[in-house]
Amino acid sequence: MCGTRCSGSLAVRYGTMKDNVLAMKVVLANGDLIKTANRARKSSAGYDLTRLMIGSEGTLGVITEVTLKVQKIPEASVVAICSFPSIKDAADVAIATMHCGIQVSRVELLDEVMVKILNDANGTDFQVAPTLMFEFIGTDAYAHEQNLRVKKIAEEHQGSGFQYFDSPEDKETLWRMRKEALWACLAAAPHAEAMTTDVCVPLTRLADCITKSKEVLDASPLLCPIVSHAGDGNFHTIILFDPSNEEHTKEATRLNEFMVHTALAMNGTCTGEHGVGTGKLKYMEEELGYEALKTMKKLKHALDPNNIMNPGKIIPPHVCL
Amino acid sequence: MCGTRCSGSLAVRYGTMKDNVLAMKVVLANGDLIKTANRARKSSAGYDLTRLMIGSEGTLGVITEVTLKVQKIPEASVVAICSFPSIKDAADVAIATMHCGIQVSRVELLDEVMVKILNDANGTDFQVAPTLMFEFIGTDAYAHEQNLRVKKIAEEHQGSGFQYFDSPEDKETLWRMRKEALWACLAAAPHAEAMTTDVCVPLTRLADCITKSKEVLDASPLLCPIVSHAGDGNFHTIILFDPSNEEHTKEATRLNEFMVHTALAMNGTCTGEHGVGTGKLKYMEEELGYEALKTMKKLKHALDPNNIMNPGKIIPPHVCL
Repeated sequence: MCGTRCSGSLAVRYGTMKDNVLAMKVVLANGDLIKTANRARKSSAGYDLTRLMIGSEGTLGVITEVTLKVQKIPEASVVAICSFPSIKDAADVAIATMHCGIQVSRVELLDEVMVKILNDANGTDFQVAPTLMFEFIGTDAYAHEQNLRVKKIAEEHQGSGFQYFDSPEDKETLWRMRKEALWACLAAAPHAEAMTTDVCVPLTRLADCITKSKEVLDASPLLCPIVSHAGDGNFHTIILFDPSNEEHTKEATRLNEFMVHTALAMNGTCTGEHGVGTGKLKYMEEELGYEALKTMKKLKHALDPNNIMNPGKIIPPHVCL
Repeated sequence: MCGTRCSGSLAVRYGTMKDNVLAMKVVLANGDLIKTANRARKSSAGYDLTRLMIGSEGTLGVITEVTLKVQKIPEASVVAICSFPSIKDAADVAIATMHCGIQVSRVELLDEVMVKILNDANGTDFQVAPTLMFEFIGTDAYAHEQNLRVKKIAEEHQGSGFQYFDSPEDKETLWRMRKEALWACLAAAPHAEAMTTDVCVPLTRLADCITKSKEVLDASPLLCPIVSHAGDGNFHTIILFDPSNEEHTKEATRLNEFMVHTALAMNGTCTGEHGVGTGKLKYMEEELGYEALKTMKKLKHALDPNNIMNPGKIIPPHVCL
């Protein structure tokens, strides 16, 4: 996880990964080894160096030690799956579920393109349609109670084929399929590379954003399955393209740009999880404004005046001190 | 909440306050107005300026706008209260409850000194003993199920007088008493002022830390009630003293120092919620080391080279760039 603001993983159960980082040791550009915090769950002792380092992509220092919160494995869990006629219906159910206060620990959305790829890779026969996968945790009674509530919400939004699983083997199989989605995509297009891109919008805008993006992705000659951590308003597209083909590269870039601009127009971010690197440098000013980037540049310069830590990342080159 | 890393409130339900801040607008020392983020629930677009500003105590900028997550009011809740023969037993139950994976939304610990003060202020007759107050949320069935589980844990640790409340009026009365604890303390010692201090330790050390601190607090001539957000490993002491009395001031300072050193020796922090200001400047190096403070100074200097934003706070004066 060195240097990345790791907000990922499928689970909204315990917040994002960064919420579970208590402290770090970091080597700075001047050779100083700093400890960002002690092991308390919360602290107000000075600037939050831990969170400054998370997501800094190695531009502020090299993380050499990370202290994480340990979480209890839930006593019981139920995994449910349900299909929908449109991706908007599926996203609407994810939104309604989060808004009605259900303590869903994961809600993942797959479009029909991704479901077909997963079926092909795993020999399964899930309905080739926009699909939600849920995980409910807690006591056995509570997990099943939440499952029934979400079934009702899904049915109100034309959900069909609602199934749930509470055996460890079935749950493991389902999540394994989801976790291996990228490899299934690469198997579906063996000569392609994957441009994985993600955006994140306020939850209320997820259905709009994902619907608009999908219209454009579906119309493309490239294969572009969607997977979404829908509970966070975050979604990923895996754009499968041949990087030696100039048209492919142009088209992949166009699709990525369309997703980003759609998300930014909805007060979202050009990257929920993946980070900026160099690929999303050009969207940073549109998202945050020049003054925020200048502030980042000042922070970078203060800790790394010779620009020796992963130079050229995060802050666009035109930004001045 | 300007400038403070607000991690407080009684609720662990949705994380601490800072976990619910999505974005801010901040005026910097050079006059720049920056937006720290858009409204997405997560973002990896550059350095986490939001969290850098939270807890900076006005030393990096003036917060002029804050965007918060909106949370659903839980469908149902149950509040429970239970007494224990010692503060260690009470803390042990708080730890066991958190560790067994129960999704408790609040767990507050009061020592017997505080319970007596609350009884006197409110005309109640709660047992004058170390006491835990819990809140369980979710569906009605789940909240009651969790309540029963915690009752069992409490009974295994010599808890007595376990009561629970599910009527809105009873719950409101109990939490109001808790929230007004500071005013009850000031009413109990009308000529005193309150030195409120807090520390936070890893949850596994809470029972040790609070027990050691309480031995010293109880032996003091000053009245020192304890309230703890026990689920976080965080506790507060309200030291009631007469600031015009030199002996009182020395004693209050000694008690505060004892708490801080005890917490730091357990890999905790000198302040979980209240911040550093000038009062806890002297503990910063013991907690974080000189290099971390030097790093903070560099960040401060980068954004406020003329030291015009709340100077003298957070970073001890002996720290060099």
